[in-house]
Amino acid sequence: MTTGVRRRMGVEERRQQLIGVALDLFSHRSPDEVSIDEIASAAGISRPLVYHYFPGKLSLYEAALKRAAEDLAARFAEPAEGPLGTRLLRVMGRFFDFVDEHGPGFSALMRGGPAVSADGVPSKDHVSATNALIESVRQAAYEHILVHLEITDPPARLELVIRSWISLAESTALIWLDGRRIPRAELELQLVHDFAALAAVSAAYDEEMAAVLRRMVKDEPPDGTFGDLVARLLSLAS
Amino acid sequence: MTTGVRRRMGVEERRQQLIGVALDLFSHRSPDEVSIDEIASAAGISRPLVYHYFPGKLSLYEAALKRAAEDLAARFAEPAEGPLGTRLLRVMGRFFDFVDEHGPGFSALMRGGPAVSADGVPSKDHVSATNALIESVRQAAYEHILVHLEITDPPARLELVIRSWISLAESTALIWLDGRRIPRAELELQLVHDFAALAAVSAAYDEEMAAVLRRMVKDEPPDGTFGDLVARLLSLAS
Repeated sequence: MTTGVRRRMGVEERRQQLIGVALDLFSHRSPDEVSIDEIASAAGISRPLVYHYFPGKLSLYEAALKRAAEDLAARFAEPAEGPLGTRLLRVMGRFFDFVDEHGPGFSALMRGGPAVSADGVPSKDHVSATNALIESVRQAAYEHILVHLEITDPPARLELVIRSWISLAESTALIWLDGRRIPRAELELQLVHDFAALAAVSAAYDEEMAAVLRRMVKDEPPDGTFGDLVARLLSLAS
Repeated sequence: MTTGVRRRMGVEERRQQLIGVALDLFSHRSPDEVSIDEIASAAGISRPLVYHYFPGKLSLYEAALKRAAEDLAARFAEPAEGPLGTRLLRVMGRFFDFVDEHGPGFSALMRGGPAVSADGVPSKDHVSATNALIESVRQAAYEHILVHLEITDPPARLELVIRSWISLAESTALIWLDGRRIPRAELELQLVHDFAALAAVSAAYDEEMAAVLRRMVKDEPPDGTFGDLVARLLSLAS
């Protein structure tokens, strides 16, 4: 029932609102360019009241980062059905959605931004907390991929391929954000192909990786993501 | 002529000695585990004298980082002769030499270590200076590769391939350092192959990149680095 009187928010509700407002502002400008005054104004409350909910910009930044990290990790969830290439392509679509929505914040964070973006001086704890959050998202991505490959005890070479590909995906997204000179749909597909290519390079010299690769592509349709790439590469080679 | 009396060093000479001592200690343990006392002791001088040359551990750390960055960038230099794959393989050998020599320091730095590694609280300026140094080394790597490809005005897709491969090389080295479970010689060759594979994936969907790829491999001997990979991949595919 609406009364026309602004309802007072509870503490947790207000905190969640401020986090949402901050993330919204960080999606247009780098966090170090966004002041507490702006966040207060966008939330329709006073600056001192913001400090009532968050002791400083840094703690608000950390809370926003935590929500963004959970949001990103949630987008990795994908049913274990159908060809692997198609599954990974859908995840890449949601990853680029996230990068698109959080552009300046994502760039600042991944380029070492959070430590320099806060009012005042960042603490050791803040830098550690930020790095731990980034690592937790990478770890979630790594574990999701293992689940889809149906592998619980990955050999060292497979772990290397997956983890280094995750860093390739991050840098590809960062480079895309810097000018958006290549259509994102092309990069989403390219990253799926890159994963297969890196696995194939490793498999070319290692029998255990060759077995993993064979399993990866066994359910791929001939005209699917990987089949199309192989056909094009063969035509390129000739 | 040696007199048996310890010669007094000049200011710059002493600074260079302390940087060398610090880098040597950082090659065995993470910088945040190395105290000024240890550096003083290893250099054979008193702790207050270290502070005479460097106002704090942070400034000594920055000077050490600068020398290491220059050292690494210098290892990218490679004569523009012979097959590209062979040139890149030699550079990868020197890159892994560097990573091997500077293990814990390299790990701490690339995992966001420097900001958390100093006595006291890192400043905004320190974090910025560190990031700028890392970026300058990446930029040097990027420009060296363009020179070898004989391309002065790279298309966006080529820039993406090169820059994202550089990040792949960094993460591969970091993963290698974490347990050294894969022989480094294998990873040096793998990174050369990864470069070709990422370029080939891009070339499969873009005519301009296909032209770059053809130029890349035109001087490759059939039994060279790339030829061997292609033969193995073809046998894997069949």
